Amino acid sequence: MVGGGDGAFIGAVHRIAARLDDCYEFVAGALSSDAQRAIASGAALRLEPDRCYTDYREMARAEAAREDGIDVVAIVTPNYLHAPVATAFLEAGIHVICDKPLGITLAEGEALVDLARAKGLVFALTHTYSGYPMVRHARELVAAGAIGEVRQVHVEYAQDWMADAAAQDPAFQATDWHNDARRAGPTGCTGDIGTHAFHIAGFVSGIQPNELLAEMHSFTPNRALDDHVQVMLRYPNGARGTLWASQMAAGCENALKLRVFGTKASLAFDQEHPNELWITPQGGSAQRLTRGRVRGDAAEHATRIPSGHPEGYLEAFAQLYRDGAAQIHAMVAKQPPPADAAWLPAVEDGVAGLRFIDAVLESDRRGSRWVSL
Amino acid sequence: MVGGGDGAFIGAVHRIAARLDDCYEFVAGALSSDAQRAIASGAALRLEPDRCYTDYREMARAEAAREDGIDVVAIVTPNYLHAPVATAFLEAGIHVICDKPLGITLAEGEALVDLARAKGLVFALTHTYSGYPMVRHARELVAAGAIGEVRQVHVEYAQDWMADAAAQDPAFQATDWHNDARRAGPTGCTGDIGTHAFHIAGFVSGIQPNELLAEMHSFTPNRALDDHVQVMLRYPNGARGTLWASQMAAGCENALKLRVFGTKASLAFDQEHPNELWITPQGGSAQRLTRGRVRGDAAEHATRIPSGHPEGYLEAFAQLYRDGAAQIHAMVAKQPPPADAAWLPAVEDGVAGLRFIDAVLESDRRGSRWVSL
Amino acid sequence: MVGGGDGAFIGAVHRIAARLDDCYEFVAGALSSDAQRAIASGAALRLEPDRCYTDYREMARAEAAREDGIDVVAIVTPNYLHAPVATAFLEAGIHVICDKPLGITLAEGEALVDLARAKGLVFALTHTYSGYPMVRHARELVAAGAIGEVRQVHVEYAQDWMADAAAQDPAFQATDWHNDARRAGPTGCTGDIGTHAFHIAGFVSGIQPNELLAEMHSFTPNRALDDHVQVMLRYPNGARGTLWASQMAAGCENALKLRVFGTKASLAFDQEHPNELWITPQGGSAQRLTRGRVRGDAAEHATRIPSGHPEGYLEAFAQLYRDGAAQIHAMVAKQPPPADAAWLPAVEDGVAGLRFIDAVLESDRRGSRWVSL
Amino acid sequence: MVGGGDGAFIGAVHRIAARLDDCYEFVAGALSSDAQRAIASGAALRLEPDRCYTDYREMARAEAAREDGIDVVAIVTPNYLHAPVATAFLEAGIHVICDKPLGITLAEGEALVDLARAKGLVFALTHTYSGYPMVRHARELVAAGAIGEVRQVHVEYAQDWMADAAAQDPAFQATDWHNDARRAGPTGCTGDIGTHAFHIAGFVSGIQPNELLAEMHSFTPNRALDDHVQVMLRYPNGARGTLWASQMAAGCENALKLRVFGTKASLAFDQEHPNELWITPQGGSAQRLTRGRVRGDAAEHATRIPSGHPEGYLEAFAQLYRDGAAQIHAMVAKQPPPADAAWLPAVEDGVAGLRFIDAVLESDRRGSRWVSL
Repeated sequence: MVGGGDGAFIGAVHRIAARLDDCYEFVAGALSSDAQRAIASGAALRLEPDRCYTDYREMARAEAAREDGIDVVAIVTPNYLHAPVATAFLEAGIHVICDKPLGITLAEGEALVDLARAKGLVFALTHTYSGYPMVRHARELVAAGAIGEVRQVHVEYAQDWMADAAAQDPAFQATDWHNDARRAGPTGCTGDIGTHAFHIAGFVSGIQPNELLAEMHSFTPNRALDDHVQVMLRYPNGARGTLWASQMAAGCENALKLRVFGTKASLAFDQEHPNELWITPQGGSAQRLTRGRVRGDAAEHATRIPSGHPEGYLEAFAQLYRDGAAQIHAMVAKQPPPADAAWLPAVEDGVAGLRFIDAVLESDRRGSRWVSL
Repeated sequence: MVGGGDGAFIGAVHRIAARLDDCYEFVAGALSSDAQRAIASGAALRLEPDRCYTDYREMARAEAAREDGIDVVAIVTPNYLHAPVATAFLEAGIHVICDKPLGITLAEGEALVDLARAKGLVFALTHTYSGYPMVRHARELVAAGAIGEVRQVHVEYAQDWMADAAAQDPAFQATDWHNDARRAGPTGCTGDIGTHAFHIAGFVSGIQPNELLAEMHSFTPNRALDDHVQVMLRYPNGARGTLWASQMAAGCENALKLRVFGTKASLAFDQEHPNELWITPQGGSAQRLTRGRVRGDAAEHATRIPSGHPEGYLEAFAQLYRDGAAQIHAMVAKQPPPADAAWLPAVEDGVAGLRFIDAVLESDRRGSRWVSL
Repeated sequence: MVGGGDGAFIGAVHRIAARLDDCYEFVAGALSSDAQRAIASGAALRLEPDRCYTDYREMARAEAAREDGIDVVAIVTPNYLHAPVATAFLEAGIHVICDKPLGITLAEGEALVDLARAKGLVFALTHTYSGYPMVRHARELVAAGAIGEVRQVHVEYAQDWMADAAAQDPAFQATDWHNDARRAGPTGCTGDIGTHAFHIAGFVSGIQPNELLAEMHSFTPNRALDDHVQVMLRYPNGARGTLWASQMAAGCENALKLRVFGTKASLAFDQEHPNELWITPQGGSAQRLTRGRVRGDAAEHATRIPSGHPEGYLEAFAQLYRDGAAQIHAMVAKQPPPADAAWLPAVEDGVAGLRFIDAVLESDRRGSRWVSL
Repeated sequence: MVGGGDGAFIGAVHRIAARLDDCYEFVAGALSSDAQRAIASGAALRLEPDRCYTDYREMARAEAAREDGIDVVAIVTPNYLHAPVATAFLEAGIHVICDKPLGITLAEGEALVDLARAKGLVFALTHTYSGYPMVRHARELVAAGAIGEVRQVHVEYAQDWMADAAAQDPAFQATDWHNDARRAGPTGCTGDIGTHAFHIAGFVSGIQPNELLAEMHSFTPNRALDDHVQVMLRYPNGARGTLWASQMAAGCENALKLRVFGTKASLAFDQEHPNELWITPQGGSAQRLTRGRVRGDAAEHATRIPSGHPEGYLEAFAQLYRDGAAQIHAMVAKQPPPADAAWLPAVEDGVAGLRFIDAVLESDRRGSRWVSL
């Protein structure tokens, strides 16, 4: 693991996710760019001292050289390091599981695609929400034609944490990397949660917009980056869509919601109630499909326990790790990756996210004009 | 009543609404532009033959001349007749309750404002959803500062009836007035339900956008008018908003939903569950306020029965009639209208709706540019 | 109308219900046992002075004698007067719409059955909740075998108003007729809301228990009557059930909920969301049926406006009045009552309710033993 | 681990739960009473061959003798083995985490209490649902007086799996241990899920009934054990309650629901939506408390990730393991167990469950008479 030292939320989540299905052992880390914190965090997590690195480049080199070196690295650093770290490990022949976004520029994202392909390595991107069984099932239903042709895609991702007094404190903003374009990339909310919304919309609907129009906004005084974005989408088949992401929506916790309307039916998914998926036929009555009760390869592959026993966010995250392990095992065995693990978001999805960010920036700069994706 | 003959949905609704609180007697009508249907409908509704008219102008003249003539007329015709009929009755000194939209051009709307003011008559516009107790309560909460300053307004109104096979039938479309720009006005979905969404957003939030950007669309092949519209809103105080209205959203019945986010809390209202209003403080837990349990003049004024005994759409509609009656009584008594009846949508709201329609049309024509409202 | 003078909640509800569908004219009343209040209330409701009575017996005589006398009387007095008043009007040849419970003793209830049959008059009992379209639909589904054979029936009716400080005030209890066995009958909560729960359970499930076991309780200090009751039910076909009614359940408004489980599926109805009915197949996914979308004679008969436009309690109440009018019209025309109005609760349902009350009393008295119904 | 070989649902759940928070290492097992299956399962789970036992007594002896022997055993066998296995390990000085129910007779349960106390060992019983953060929070709220004095406790646990064709198949019933009184104990549904319901009711409400009345039933033809039970409860403080558990409730997945009504407010928890807890004040509006947003030691102790990121059943289960580890660490360190881990269900809760089963059996046998607990 690179990043994820003491106090880092997402690092702990990655470690639980890796552990949950018993497919990984956590044996080495460069857990912080601060050497002292890296070492202390490693000790707290019971890493052997000699595998507790203070520099990710050194870690890539050293682990690649060991007989028992790591097979795969998890990257949970601030955004601006994703690409350099991933590059170092790919070049060392080590598979990568990287937090989103893929990087901060489209160019570095595209370079990673080339590198991962050239090296023949697995590159998983943790768009967590695609690991939910009912999101997988939604995708399977759409692909099977259950809702007909897609006409509308509406996705939203609303939080309120940035409007909290603590986050509005200028002193916090001056130091937190999420507010620093150099470390976070050129957007705030758009890259942080807008890309998740964009990904799940495409993951489920099976279609990608070819034009968008956007307005970014910051409600936070003097904030350089956006804390709010509204987007309209046009799809090649004539479908229309909207995307709204905000970190300034009072009362919202982690409200990622997707609705896909087709000619025959619509689907609705709410991340805060992930064991359910609603399907409503044109002119008909809503049905509440539940994890464990629906039959379908995709949902059954991504679930562990019976219906009525809720699974949650950590299980969705673990699913990505499980699919990553399956892909790596297949690669080692020189076999094609198993079909049911193939929906793991990959480096190409990361590039799509960076293209989305660039298009939002361009549209916003041009006064919310339609731009091509 | 003008319009509302046999088979007309909205006419029957107006009659129940007028009856519910026992403030009106139904005594005269020009119920159809088809003379035979007008007479048959009047008979079926037990009107006296001599007050069952075949022409609205004749009705205005005759009723104005009778000692026991009507005090108020309900207009439930196709859109293009709203303004001419209203004009005829206003000129005859008769109060008006008119279905929305106010008319088909901004000019005729503005003329009605002038006329109603000049005549000193009540002109109610039936934006039904503003009659719900919990919508009134929401407005009162916002006005009292309960959610702080408004930052975001998101409103949507989705239906699926136009995607039904019956409504998609070209033969139906060729005859139904909703598809005919001459009778319906220059928009379809935008005027039909978009104006309801626009009205409730302003009614509750207490703020009006000064800029919008829109894209209209028709999923129905060869339909002249829009069946779908997406709008972004900007407000003078920096607030942002979205409006989505669609009659092609599979599985949606009459899904009008409003969310208003402020600096302190957010509100959410869903027309299909009108006895509830959700309020969630910044960083806090949602509370489900219910009709009959909340204390507040506005909600208590607009309700009839105790909490837990659901009121619905007809009661909301009746509230507009009740408020109209209160305003007329006050006018007759040469007193100011009672405060609690003052929230009845009026001719000025109709003009605001027509301005909204014009702005949407202009933005759409210009490739979704921002336009002033 | 007998009872329902100024300030009486249920009288106002009956008047709205009678008015809503325009099947009744309100022309006469003995609105209070207090003569002055009776006259004042009649004047306020615009009754002609000569039809504003101070004694119900006089009203029955006088109205029966008039050529334009009333066809039907609505009885909304305290419980102990239901039977005497109904008797007076039946004997005068006038149809009856009576609030529940039918009376305070089983004997008087049985006498009313005999009298109504002998006179050939309509006797409607306002078990309001059976007027909801989705309750009618539920009954139709069960009767059509949609859930298979019924195995379990669980019904509950919870309120909290009696735990309010105002209702707990001994001064209030000393005067309110609900606390006075002489006027309310031998039970409190059991007769007041338990009978509603019992009725809807049988109405929908189509089966009646033949044994029950009960415990009554009063949480209110020194209250003579029960404010809480718990019941177990056994049915002839082996089905099992529970009934819980409480007026001391903090936070409950008017929470009448019914669940019926069959061999193939289950149904769930919640009175506070009356436009919905949930059906879930054995091993399957819940479906949310909605008023206006479901096809079926019973629901369509009992509805007025399209799906997504909520109907509520007053419309359910009005449905009973509408069905009563249809039965009376048929009787006048010497025709069989229309099939779709036949589900109106009648005097026999009132007797079933009184039998239920008696059985609860007996079981409770015997230490919650099983007793036959 | 004893039990939990290949194909056993609950064994896999225990292993994930133990792994999730990284407090345990899985190193030894007697995974099946079938020697071949025990060995194959151990190999599949990567146990060292010499710690893969075919007899639990041998395992207890051998592990106790090893320097690196296990500290704690997880027991996931059929019910009838719980007590013998636990006894063997306790006597060997090894802490125990045991699936519920504690055993099949009250006598063996009481013997385990004595033994565990005599040995000074931790004995955790996996009443999973008490591990949910919002269940912990509910208990904390009740204990802090937030709902006033408890008046009513209603708990239900409904499933439908036993009504499935597969479970109704006599061939299945003839072999499945859940249908065999010798292996499952004297009850079916009552012990299987009724004890969970009984435990959570006491865990949250903080009070225990002193009398109950019950009816057991089997809807399954020729089934020796109950598949359905209905219970009424009386508490020393005058509170009343009901408990309903059924495995024959069509459409129910794992529907454990608890409601506790106090003099000031009520609480409602639904296991299928475990990130929420509803609190409604007397006469007031419901509030939806959410995991991660509520402040309180108990909930914060039992949670891992921020609000809006759902946790589920596995995390609740893991909480019991985490609390068990904390207790064991404290014991090793000769310190009092940490307060926040003290709510772990223990051997005494198992005895209370066995007493509940005995009382239900006795009441049912006596025709649903009230019996003391």
